[in-house]
Amino acid sequence: MKKIAIGLASSIIGMSFMMAANAADPKPQDVVEYRKAVYTIIGWNFKPIVAMVKGEVPFDAAAVARHAQYVEMMSKAAPEGFTKGSGPDVVKDTDAKLEIWTNWGKFETAMTNFQQESAKLVEVAKAGDESAIKAQFGKTAETCKACHKEFRKD
Amino acid sequence: MKKIAIGLASSIIGMSFMMAANAADPKPQDVVEYRKAVYTIIGWNFKPIVAMVKGEVPFDAAAVARHAQYVEMMSKAAPEGFTKGSGPDVVKDTDAKLEIWTNWGKFETAMTNFQQESAKLVEVAKAGDESAIKAQFGKTAETCKACHKEFRKD
Repeated sequence: MKKIAIGLASSIIGMSFMMAANAADPKPQDVVEYRKAVYTIIGWNFKPIVAMVKGEVPFDAAAVARHAQYVEMMSKAAPEGFTKGSGPDVVKDTDAKLEIWTNWGKFETAMTNFQQESAKLVEVAKAGDESAIKAQFGKTAETCKACHKEFRKD
Repeated sequence: MKKIAIGLASSIIGMSFMMAANAADPKPQDVVEYRKAVYTIIGWNFKPIVAMVKGEVPFDAAAVARHAQYVEMMSKAAPEGFTKGSGPDVVKDTDAKLEIWTNWGKFETAMTNFQQESAKLVEVAKAGDESAIKAQFGKTAETCKACHKEFRKD
């Protein structure tokens, strides 16, 4: 199997979640499937960073940066997955708590924290200092935990 | 529910699929779940573009550009989801054909075509010309169809 090396062009995304929600009017089940996909990709990219932080595999700042960029991009894609009417009162197969929609301001803050810390992780990873990267990864992971604790069923 | 407007910083990702595959050594089932997530996000972002191309919703070049950027990013994320040993001979719940791995060169070409056309779609969408965007979207969709025809079960 050949190695695939890909250079991804610069991209700037201006994202408005309500606009996207209105554009195609997806079904609640599709919204849930989408947000699960977003978090699957976040998890996929978190795992190798965790393995490096734990010392299970050799530390590679460039690899952290690459994975962190996917996490950051998905942090921007996540809000679209929480449209009104896609909660556990409508769709059964979801771990999202109703509190997301009844306490939207707090959820939005938690989401913004995640977006900001994952964006910082990309920057710190690009700079290449291992201990700084590990520290910033810790901060990013904390934003995950904080949001899950409040807004996701265990 | 408040509108969330997010500006995503510039990002350049240099992606090496074998590196990622080796870093955390994910299980075949996790690889399959990951690649399904990638295509779920691609589909999610394709739908509103299709609706605009069909005239079901007003055409919005900026929205096309935003969705196309997610498609492009996921086109770069997709190869990681096809590691050796994640085919239908190992994992049952997959529509990926064994031909992906027995004819890897052809699959790689089909994937590269998709990556290139979706990258072009981002550029064309940013330029803002509706007919050019529709034409480039058609070319991008053709690369999906070509790969699915050859390498995905119906």
